[in-house]
Amino acid sequence: MRQIHICEVGPRDGLQNAHQRMSTEAKKAWIRAIADAGVEEIEVGSFVPPKLIPAMADTGEIVAFARTLPGVKVVALAPNLKGFQRSLEAGAHKVTFPVSASRTHSLANVRMTPEQMLEEVRKCAQHPHPGVEIEGAVSTAFGCTLQGEVPDDDVVRIAAGLAEICDCVALADTVGYANPAQIRRIFRKVKSEIGDKLEAAHLHNTRGLGLANALAAYEEGVRHFDSSMGGLGGCPFAPGASGNVITEDLVFMFESMGLRTGIDLDRLMAARKLMVAALPEEPVYGHMALAGVPKGFRAAA
Amino acid sequence: MRQIHICEVGPRDGLQNAHQRMSTEAKKAWIRAIADAGVEEIEVGSFVPPKLIPAMADTGEIVAFARTLPGVKVVALAPNLKGFQRSLEAGAHKVTFPVSASRTHSLANVRMTPEQMLEEVRKCAQHPHPGVEIEGAVSTAFGCTLQGEVPDDDVVRIAAGLAEICDCVALADTVGYANPAQIRRIFRKVKSEIGDKLEAAHLHNTRGLGLANALAAYEEGVRHFDSSMGGLGGCPFAPGASGNVITEDLVFMFESMGLRTGIDLDRLMAARKLMVAALPEEPVYGHMALAGVPKGFRAAA
Repeated sequence: MRQIHICEVGPRDGLQNAHQRMSTEAKKAWIRAIADAGVEEIEVGSFVPPKLIPAMADTGEIVAFARTLPGVKVVALAPNLKGFQRSLEAGAHKVTFPVSASRTHSLANVRMTPEQMLEEVRKCAQHPHPGVEIEGAVSTAFGCTLQGEVPDDDVVRIAAGLAEICDCVALADTVGYANPAQIRRIFRKVKSEIGDKLEAAHLHNTRGLGLANALAAYEEGVRHFDSSMGGLGGCPFAPGASGNVITEDLVFMFESMGLRTGIDLDRLMAARKLMVAALPEEPVYGHMALAGVPKGFRAAA
Repeated sequence: MRQIHICEVGPRDGLQNAHQRMSTEAKKAWIRAIADAGVEEIEVGSFVPPKLIPAMADTGEIVAFARTLPGVKVVALAPNLKGFQRSLEAGAHKVTFPVSASRTHSLANVRMTPEQMLEEVRKCAQHPHPGVEIEGAVSTAFGCTLQGEVPDDDVVRIAAGLAEICDCVALADTVGYANPAQIRRIFRKVKSEIGDKLEAAHLHNTRGLGLANALAAYEEGVRHFDSSMGGLGGCPFAPGASGNVITEDLVFMFESMGLRTGIDLDRLMAARKLMVAALPEEPVYGHMALAGVPKGFRAAA
C-alpha cells in the first residue's frame, strides 16, 4: 500500500554521468540490494550506442538479471527505435523515451528537433510491444543550460504529443533549474492538458532545490518520483553539485511526513554502501547518510 | 519592497558552533559584506558567559560596530537578564531569547525548566528597554536529540507564553528534525493561538530538508526566515551535516520563485568568500556556490 512510488535511476542516470565505471558484477549486487530495500521500480540502464556511453554497454545483461528479482519493475531508457528493439529483446518491463522541450538541447544532443523526436517515439509506440509499458519523458522541461528559459507552451506541447502515444508522461528537470513555483505552475498546466497520463517527476538537485521541488510536485498531485542513490552522477558543468534528487533523503522526507514509500531506510543505506564501495572515487551526496534519522523516528505506518 | 525577510544568523549560530575561531576584525569585515549584499537583519552574536563560549566574547564590540552599518537591524541573543542588560548596553536593536520546548533539552542546556525560562524572559521584558524589540524563540520546537519527540502542545504552550511578553515569536528546528508536514501542522497550531505575533522560522538543514521546510513554512504564511551563510556551524552530533539552512540557497529559492528578498546574490557570494577565507578549515555548504544560477536567471523584480 505505497502512497509514494519511487523509481531508482542511479544505475542509469547516475552511472551514465559518473566519472568512474562500475563493473557488471557490482551493478548486479547493487541492483539486488536496491530491490531488497523495497524499491519497486529501477531504471537499470540505457540502450544507447556503447561507443558513445561505454558505461551502458552491459545494459542487456543487466536488464536480464534485474528481471529475476521478484517484484521489481525493470526500466530501460531508449533514445530511438533501435534502442527500443534492444530493450524489448532484453526483456525490460518499461521503456522510457526522453524528448527535450528545448529545441537547442534536442538539436545538440540527438541532432533532431523535438518534433522529429516525437515522431521517433511514435514509431516505437507503433512497433509491437506486448505487455511493455512506455513512458515519454519531457526533458529540460524547466530550463536548459544551452537555451536558458524553455517556454511553458513548448513543454505542454511535447507532453501532449507524448500523451497521445505513450502510457504515461514524466516531466524532467534535467539540469536542476526548476523552482517550486515553476514546478507547481508547469505540472498544473500539463495536467490540465493530459490529465492522469501525467505521472512522474524526474528532479535534479544541482541547485539544492530537489526536495523542495519534490514537495511542490507532491502537493500538485504527483505520486511517482525518480531519484538516484547518493545523488550519484553529478553534473559535468557543476563540479561538486549533486545530480538527481537523492533517494535516501527523498524517502526520509516522505516517510517522515507519514507517507509510505515501501522502502526500508536501513536496507537502503546498506545498498548505498555497496554503491560507494564499488565507486570509491565518485563523489556521493545525501544528508541521511551523514546525520541519520531523528531520535524516535518511525517510518510511515 | 521585500516580500521575504531574511535574518543572517551565521555570525551567531554559525560561529558559535564552528570548530574554528573568527577574529574580531574578520567578523566586522564579513558583517559589513553581509550588509552590503542587502541583508536587512543580522544576528551578530550572543551575550553568554565568555568562559562557556569564547567565540562570542567580542559580541559587545561587534554589536557596536554593526550599529554603524546603515539599514541593518542588529540582533543579539541573550539567555537571561544579565545577557539582556549587556545587549542593551551594547545597543542591539533586537534581542532574541531562546526557550526550549523540550524539557529535557532545557534542563540539560540551562538547568531550568521551560517554565522557569519563560519567567526569566518575563523579567527581561519587564526591564526597561526603550525602542528595543524582543523576540521569543521556541527552540527544539520540532524534536530534540535528547528527548526525541516534542509534543505539539508543549510548543503551543511555550509560544503562547512568549507571545504574552515578547514583540514576536519564532519557531526553531534547532536540531534539524522537522519535516514539511510537521512544519505546516505546528505553524498552523501556533498561529491559531497567537496570530500575527508568530513571525519567523529558524530552520536547520541537518537532514537536508531545510529548503523544503522553508517552502512549507512560506506556504503557511511565514515571511521571516533565519539562515546562515554556507550552512555554517554544522552540528557536533552529525559530522558533515550542515547547520542552519543555507542563506545563499534560500535566497536563490525565493528569488527564483519571483519573491523579493532585497538581497543581491553576487554580493552575497562575495560575502561568502570573505567568510571562507577567514575560516579556511571550516566545512561550508551550499549548492549556489557550486552550481551558480541558471542561464538567463533573473532576480525577482
